Amino acid sequence: MIPFNKPYFSGKETQYISESIKSGKISGDGMFTKKCHRFFEEEMSFEKVLLTTSCTDALEMAAILVDIQPGDEVIMPSYTFVSTSNAFVLRGAKIIFADSRKDHPGIDESTIEELITPQTKVIVPVHYAGVACDMDKIMELANKYNLFVVEDAAQSIDSFYTNKNGEKQKLGSIGHLAAFSFHETKNIISGEGGMLVINDKRFEGRAEIIREKGTNRSAFFRGEVDKYGWVDIGSSFLPSDIIAAYLYAQLENLDSIQDKRKLIWENYDNAFRGILDKKYGIGLPFIPHFASNNAHMYYIICKNIEERSSLLKFLKEEGILAVFHYLSLHKSKFFEDSYQGQELYQSDRYSDSLVRLPFFPELSMQQQDLIISKIIFYYNNRKRYNN
Amino acid sequence: MIPFNKPYFSGKETQYISESIKSGKISGDGMFTKKCHRFFEEEMSFEKVLLTTSCTDALEMAAILVDIQPGDEVIMPSYTFVSTSNAFVLRGAKIIFADSRKDHPGIDESTIEELITPQTKVIVPVHYAGVACDMDKIMELANKYNLFVVEDAAQSIDSFYTNKNGEKQKLGSIGHLAAFSFHETKNIISGEGGMLVINDKRFEGRAEIIREKGTNRSAFFRGEVDKYGWVDIGSSFLPSDIIAAYLYAQLENLDSIQDKRKLIWENYDNAFRGILDKKYGIGLPFIPHFASNNAHMYYIICKNIEERSSLLKFLKEEGILAVFHYLSLHKSKFFEDSYQGQELYQSDRYSDSLVRLPFFPELSMQQQDLIISKIIFYYNNRKRYNN
Repeated sequence: MIPFNKPYFSGKETQYISESIKSGKISGDGMFTKKCHRFFEEEMSFEKVLLTTSCTDALEMAAILVDIQPGDEVIMPSYTFVSTSNAFVLRGAKIIFADSRKDHPGIDESTIEELITPQTKVIVPVHYAGVACDMDKIMELANKYNLFVVEDAAQSIDSFYTNKNGEKQKLGSIGHLAAFSFHETKNIISGEGGMLVINDKRFEGRAEIIREKGTNRSAFFRGEVDKYGWVDIGSSFLPSDIIAAYLYAQLENLDSIQDKRKLIWENYDNAFRGILDKKYGIGLPFIPHFASNNAHMYYIICKNIEERSSLLKFLKEEGILAVFHYLSLHKSKFFEDSYQGQELYQSDRYSDSLVRLPFFPELSMQQQDLIISKIIFYYNNRKRYNN
Repeated sequence: MIPFNKPYFSGKETQYISESIKSGKISGDGMFTKKCHRFFEEEMSFEKVLLTTSCTDALEMAAILVDIQPGDEVIMPSYTFVSTSNAFVLRGAKIIFADSRKDHPGIDESTIEELITPQTKVIVPVHYAGVACDMDKIMELANKYNLFVVEDAAQSIDSFYTNKNGEKQKLGSIGHLAAFSFHETKNIISGEGGMLVINDKRFEGRAEIIREKGTNRSAFFRGEVDKYGWVDIGSSFLPSDIIAAYLYAQLENLDSIQDKRKLIWENYDNAFRGILDKKYGIGLPFIPHFASNNAHMYYIICKNIEERSSLLKFLKEEGILAVFHYLSLHKSKFFEDSYQGQELYQSDRYSDSLVRLPFFPELSMQQQDLIISKIIFYYNNRKRYNN
């Protein structure tokens, strides 16, 4: 069976974990957490970062930092992971779901303004597949209506947005806050893991506090206060240093991981483009002119849910594990009764029709050739399968 | 310098982490998470457990499971870690702080009933230093007033309560829910880490859901539902399998770790009891007749904060890192303005006067002899230091 994902292992992870253990501190903010923080802040030039136990936790930190109060409205795409919304729901927010673009699963920026009300507090662009949302447009709206922007950059490591001035901006560096994921399905991993990026200095002090269970422990250890105690709400958002040690080995190999992933992405795209799309009307990834491609995922978009089910079944029988992705959150059991917005046709279309293909650095050429040939075979013969 | 704590390493942790990596799944609920769950449920006979990223997260799960609503009251000791309270504050609870026992930092069970109002929903006994609270009394109150009991068992692995029928009950198995910590300062560790114990079957289904970001993913993988989606609030409470691999190596060595810790505890106690208490009026640990001693910590209680500061300073100069512990939460910056209860004299006394001595399995006899001799020297000569 060709799996959908295989967690990447560079070889140095276990060595660094041993070093972390030998350091005498494997709880949060140990030596490898500091190394990771430095890597992101110095090598990658993020303003200020804090590792978390998950991207979910980073989003929860963001929801606390922007001070969500019951009834505050948060605009986000319906086609996203459940944590994008739950992080704000936990603070009492009312979620306002937007549709996706027709050419890409990211939020349709042209639909956002009409969703803004006096209660709106935050816009959460989700850079689906690491492909940038139209951040100029979103930041303009945020400025115009005095809103916060929290980038859900879960899939967006090493990806960029080119703004109207032609400047390349790292995803996760544009909104007031951003959340990354290092879950094992991402480009750079630590099993479970995440990171909050703080681009607005106003949040830096409080971010440290809520990450340390609502205490001013970090300031205490820097000698800024003479004792530490309970000063705010908060949680234990910081990961064990063992997790940071795994992550650091991945970060050191970011370039080689990305080279491998980009090759896999190009192989899929070269095999499919001009064939699946032109001949069979299958959707292929679209990278807007302002976005880069970090080769996080390769997806195809079937005609409908029946075709997708048939294709997934066929591939499974051939030993290939392709998978679908999100289900529109506005139609979830948790939310559907309270949803009062319009139909979100694109969100529903991606929910029904998008297929993610196996994608991991160790996917061999032979495996990829097999996947490609089986998919093309399926469409060449789909009358046989599609009933 | 003799540190206060040194994280324990049995030797097998890195091997198990390598096995977890080789298994192809290092995200949550991998092979070592399952091994840990089995260990707690089969070897230790807990009803149902779920590993979490921290004890804080386990307490947050408990607060969600008992369905805390804004204004619900939760009774807990003021002398506890900030997460005991923050977990409930995050859900809107009003915290009602109780005093500690005069003979022990655990909650004074005789003061609880007068704190109960129609808004009370939960009692949170904190088994300080792994020493049981009076659970018969607390469970009787819970039954009488229809309250939930969430045991904060952060320090309570391998510790017991003997109930009025003479039955030994594991701490964490008595309340409706319980939370354990595997932070590196605990007896059994994984850097950061925790566990929720579910003793009331009503909570089992929902606990799985809220731990999986509010989705019914666990039921889906058991084939109980045909697709999974957003069904509830929740977060990402599950730890990477790397963390579980570390923890499993510790669990396998539970007996030998506990043997080492109990020896250290006895050494301190044999050296001090009859001397520090009788001669100098220093408080020493008290284990009530209904409680066991899991050798989580050895503490002494100075006369006042001045004496404690002087002792800690003396020990530091002698190369020994002893530390104080909690500060009364009702007097914290976050809470003091809203506190309307009585003075909590014992809580304040422990806040001012309790000293935790270096305590970890690899503390050598020579090191311990040095610590003991320095403390006795200090009290024999304290007029010189105490000014």
